[in-house]
Amino acid sequence: MKRIGLLTSGGDCQALNAAMRGVVKSMYNSGEQIEVYGFLNGYQGLIYGNYRMLDPSDFSGILTRGGTILGSSRTPFKTIREPDEKGLNKVEAMKHNYHKRNLDCLVILGGNGTHKTANLLREEGLNIVTLPKTIDNDLWGTDMTFGFQSAVDIATNVIDAIHTTADSHGRVFIVEVMGHKVGFLTLNAGLASGADIILIPEIPYDIDKVVEAINRRKERGASFTIIAVAEGAISKEDAKLSKKEYKKKLANREHPSVSYEVASEIEKRTGQEVRVTVPGHMQRGGSPCPYDRVFASRLGAEAGKLILKGEYGFMVGYRNREIVKVPLEEVAGKLKMLEPKASIIKEAKLLGISFGD
Amino acid sequence: MKRIGLLTSGGDCQALNAAMRGVVKSMYNSGEQIEVYGFLNGYQGLIYGNYRMLDPSDFSGILTRGGTILGSSRTPFKTIREPDEKGLNKVEAMKHNYHKRNLDCLVILGGNGTHKTANLLREEGLNIVTLPKTIDNDLWGTDMTFGFQSAVDIATNVIDAIHTTADSHGRVFIVEVMGHKVGFLTLNAGLASGADIILIPEIPYDIDKVVEAINRRKERGASFTIIAVAEGAISKEDAKLSKKEYKKKLANREHPSVSYEVASEIEKRTGQEVRVTVPGHMQRGGSPCPYDRVFASRLGAEAGKLILKGEYGFMVGYRNREIVKVPLEEVAGKLKMLEPKASIIKEAKLLGISFGD
Amino acid sequence: MKRIGLLTSGGDCQALNAAMRGVVKSMYNSGEQIEVYGFLNGYQGLIYGNYRMLDPSDFSGILTRGGTILGSSRTPFKTIREPDEKGLNKVEAMKHNYHKRNLDCLVILGGNGTHKTANLLREEGLNIVTLPKTIDNDLWGTDMTFGFQSAVDIATNVIDAIHTTADSHGRVFIVEVMGHKVGFLTLNAGLASGADIILIPEIPYDIDKVVEAINRRKERGASFTIIAVAEGAISKEDAKLSKKEYKKKLANREHPSVSYEVASEIEKRTGQEVRVTVPGHMQRGGSPCPYDRVFASRLGAEAGKLILKGEYGFMVGYRNREIVKVPLEEVAGKLKMLEPKASIIKEAKLLGISFGD
Amino acid sequence: MKRIGLLTSGGDCQALNAAMRGVVKSMYNSGEQIEVYGFLNGYQGLIYGNYRMLDPSDFSGILTRGGTILGSSRTPFKTIREPDEKGLNKVEAMKHNYHKRNLDCLVILGGNGTHKTANLLREEGLNIVTLPKTIDNDLWGTDMTFGFQSAVDIATNVIDAIHTTADSHGRVFIVEVMGHKVGFLTLNAGLASGADIILIPEIPYDIDKVVEAINRRKERGASFTIIAVAEGAISKEDAKLSKKEYKKKLANREHPSVSYEVASEIEKRTGQEVRVTVPGHMQRGGSPCPYDRVFASRLGAEAGKLILKGEYGFMVGYRNREIVKVPLEEVAGKLKMLEPKASIIKEAKLLGISFGD
Repeated sequence: MKRIGLLTSGGDCQALNAAMRGVVKSMYNSGEQIEVYGFLNGYQGLIYGNYRMLDPSDFSGILTRGGTILGSSRTPFKTIREPDEKGLNKVEAMKHNYHKRNLDCLVILGGNGTHKTANLLREEGLNIVTLPKTIDNDLWGTDMTFGFQSAVDIATNVIDAIHTTADSHGRVFIVEVMGHKVGFLTLNAGLASGADIILIPEIPYDIDKVVEAINRRKERGASFTIIAVAEGAISKEDAKLSKKEYKKKLANREHPSVSYEVASEIEKRTGQEVRVTVPGHMQRGGSPCPYDRVFASRLGAEAGKLILKGEYGFMVGYRNREIVKVPLEEVAGKLKMLEPKASIIKEAKLLGISFGD
Repeated sequence: MKRIGLLTSGGDCQALNAAMRGVVKSMYNSGEQIEVYGFLNGYQGLIYGNYRMLDPSDFSGILTRGGTILGSSRTPFKTIREPDEKGLNKVEAMKHNYHKRNLDCLVILGGNGTHKTANLLREEGLNIVTLPKTIDNDLWGTDMTFGFQSAVDIATNVIDAIHTTADSHGRVFIVEVMGHKVGFLTLNAGLASGADIILIPEIPYDIDKVVEAINRRKERGASFTIIAVAEGAISKEDAKLSKKEYKKKLANREHPSVSYEVASEIEKRTGQEVRVTVPGHMQRGGSPCPYDRVFASRLGAEAGKLILKGEYGFMVGYRNREIVKVPLEEVAGKLKMLEPKASIIKEAKLLGISFGD
Repeated sequence: MKRIGLLTSGGDCQALNAAMRGVVKSMYNSGEQIEVYGFLNGYQGLIYGNYRMLDPSDFSGILTRGGTILGSSRTPFKTIREPDEKGLNKVEAMKHNYHKRNLDCLVILGGNGTHKTANLLREEGLNIVTLPKTIDNDLWGTDMTFGFQSAVDIATNVIDAIHTTADSHGRVFIVEVMGHKVGFLTLNAGLASGADIILIPEIPYDIDKVVEAINRRKERGASFTIIAVAEGAISKEDAKLSKKEYKKKLANREHPSVSYEVASEIEKRTGQEVRVTVPGHMQRGGSPCPYDRVFASRLGAEAGKLILKGEYGFMVGYRNREIVKVPLEEVAGKLKMLEPKASIIKEAKLLGISFGD
Repeated sequence: MKRIGLLTSGGDCQALNAAMRGVVKSMYNSGEQIEVYGFLNGYQGLIYGNYRMLDPSDFSGILTRGGTILGSSRTPFKTIREPDEKGLNKVEAMKHNYHKRNLDCLVILGGNGTHKTANLLREEGLNIVTLPKTIDNDLWGTDMTFGFQSAVDIATNVIDAIHTTADSHGRVFIVEVMGHKVGFLTLNAGLASGADIILIPEIPYDIDKVVEAINRRKERGASFTIIAVAEGAISKEDAKLSKKEYKKKLANREHPSVSYEVASEIEKRTGQEVRVTVPGHMQRGGSPCPYDRVFASRLGAEAGKLILKGEYGFMVGYRNREIVKVPLEEVAGKLKMLEPKASIIKEAKLLGISFGD
């Protein structure tokens, strides 16, 4: 008999439900008796003891459903360590709630921030297994995260739709793709949709080079240009600022986001009209794509196996086409970024894409 | 033998190509010899004599393609009447180019603005047939325009995707749907996606009623609220302003659009986080939906029939499930709006949707 | 206080849930107290008294869900009148279960067969309101049924996908579209996807004309031909047979369906390879399209209104863009078919489509 | 200056155009002068010297287009070695046409059969680079082929659509997924869509086990069962036959495919109605999914690089997340199959899926 807790933390994404279904189905099918506590709204549920008992029927029909049946919330690592407004020590509260239910293990689905807290709970003696969820694919220790491919599909569809308008009107279009710190999503959506220019955090851009690329297209007879811009794209000058200075600059900027800034610069320099589209949260929503459903289900099944064997303290990840267990201490606090010299970047350049560098 | 000119004017939308294919295919198949002049980028092509000769192969495979193979541009009616920077009289230039090619007829695909100019050209003696294109469905004289259902599909998909995130995070989400003057698109996408509150130009909103609706949902246990806001949604106070005063207010507003204004008001009054998504131009893009492909093809075929019979001066429209010819003078300068007492509004209210009124 | 029964009968289709949600939501929102009995698996549930009590939460989140939360089954009209294997009189059983629960009204969602039984129950004194559900759009008394547009979308996508293969391989492809008795679905999907030949029950085909149309395309340089064939397409010779003779012929035919028969004839006469695709039940499945969600919700809301007013004995239908109530006795036993002289057929021919006639 | 020939051979699939665009764009962007000969309809074009000269504009806008702009055909390896009806030696003819155009290299896109011929041409002294195209993912030497993920997406959508009907009607549904020799596609689509039973060539099935799995579901209260069957699924008895005996049996079987055979067996043993859906060629059609567009573009770009360096005799493949060159002699004549002990199979079983073994 195993008592497991489940929680989903951070921004939601596709295939969270598929992954949880994988964990629970694989344990039920093993013949082991299990009790499943679903903590609500991320770490908040664990801190304040809010949970629902879940049975097999709760996991039926959720393979294809977006979002998370448990709800989620963002609880930044630094606020985890602070007492709440009533003076409650949150880490102690989580330990208390874990031990009170006599849990064998806690399964945590989340991204970077989530993994810091997960590792802390491990250090505090709780049995933890995690699953790598994020549309950003920026988790250390795994080649892939679930949510990523679904978000690529959506962002690609957005740029596809913009393509027909761009082509008809001969304008410059910017599509702002999610990703404050890394450019995997923007790069893949840009490649998939035939974007002409791609701006990502890992490769600071020079606005003059961006304008050059637009002009080169014009000279070759192309009436329009499509630019995929990651939320965290940054100019060469800004990349030289200290973190603090840059944050200050961001806080004071006139434009709502970097896309509008780039748009305004291009308009100034070329006289051309530039349109910005911000698909925003729809990139995290909707039914997971088949790739993510398979991937999350497999990771979930392997997590179930680990728990049955009593192996804790791992993220279930994917490396070189194998599902592997990665020690949590290796994952926590690290960010996986695109290498500017990665072969996918070189290939993108061969295909004629400018990164503004 | 017929010589026809084709042009697409105004913001592009889905099924423009399908409609043009319909016109041309139906004429070719009639056995009539035809010559097709495709004027480029809307009225600009007619003014400056920029065109391409088109043959049947140009219309092959474009039924499903978004945008317009001719390009488009917005040329507001009032600038049509003004000379260009070189002093050219644009109306005379269009007449000149029409007569120079010895055209039998000009087929114009466009929305409201486009129809004013089309009617002017008719008054100037040109043979005109028009087709009703717009995602707004706000053209007088026709129950339906092509582009509308495709845009409803896209806007609905956006709200569907937002739904899973809203549900997981328990927030208020606003999706800004296209439509500066009318609310058909927002209303239909809102109904189709189960939006809780819908704000449209035809029904000015009271922000207190919007907040009440959010709170009522909370009391009933709903963790989230989704609001579909038309670009042209307007508050009750603003609706009392004169056009001039309102324009001035808009020009000076702090927020980039009404959605952000509504979001900010709700945040102030409820303390809840509100997220805004602006799908923007993707609503006009991509492959037309099957409904629009059939509809535009049928209208195009009937336009071809009219031309063969030499009947000019009409928009080919749709009324009471029949394709009809509507005199251009009846269409030009009029806007079709949602009646606040329309049965679809009453039904939406029965379904529990608030319009903030 | 109103007690209503709900049941869905016949082949399932998209938007059944949306329609039931509309009925129930509109009644709840009216302030009236209601009790909802959901009879399971169509008339079977009413006959044998199998039902679930439903509350508002059962209707939450089902707007976009395909299928029916109540289950469905086909119970042909003639078997309704026969006693079951235990000698039970089914009509009496249904009346008994209706009166035992003290129902004010029964809301029945179904197509042609369903309406015959619904009308019988009305004649037997029950209060009935029906909603027009079918992917075939063949219900008398309404211009549109829900499920139809969703099925058109799916069948169109299938033919779209086939198009790229047909184009690459230069073959003749047949796609078999649902519709044993009427051709609305095949015609609309065929028009929307640019099919070259469309065979429907209303226009018996001459295989020589079909082959001619294929050859004409070849002569013009087209390497492939796409044929959309309704399940109930029929040759000119077979159309001359009596119903009985035709049934007998069908029962003995070598091929699994008319598509394979047509394919085999074409292969014999042209020597070309013909491929058949049968998307089958997927045409009834998946999430309803936005059009159907709006349409079914509106019909449902109006049905709720009728019930609150105590107006029974009607199908809630759609005519000339208005939602209307149609007496059940007018609907039952009639079939709406495509007129071979309908303008949509003429337009399709103008577009170059052959019907093999 | 490089002269390259391009050809696509075998069944078409998604992303063929994307891959060719990648090859050509990367070479143009390198600054090298190139001449591109597009041989039409696979090896047929090379044998008979049918080609089109292609320029950059031919590759514009084809990233998202399904099929192949060059056309394709199947030319089995054994017929390649035989003279044609006029006595022409096909291998000599291909060599002749290659040398006559003074080609530097031939880029061949294809699957298993295609690679045998490609390797033969290499042995005959031609410079060959190949790209791995197939929805089956059964090519030796590469972890992934393009077309595969797009086909998984389509097959998954089909099963998703069937799910709602199955759920509403409580029947057994079989969906026949492409794959005569390997089960990757069926397995992935089955996992992604939550199929209950998956039958693939690599794991011969026992019909009694299949029926047991259906009955077990019934006992647990599930009203329906969904079975994904690969075209090449085989029963345990048939797996014992010699190849020749099995072929003979296939040729004489009563049912059009294994799916109908399985359906008939289940109906006999359970008395339940079983429905079969055969999406067929739609699995190869339509726009490539974003994954395939990125993947094929990257492979294409790397192929372009190889050609510029004059490295020939390779397939450009993908192994352990790196794009690699694989000697053609290693690829030709081998089939990559699913290992029955692969971890993905074990995970699928943990998730409760039966393989009928």
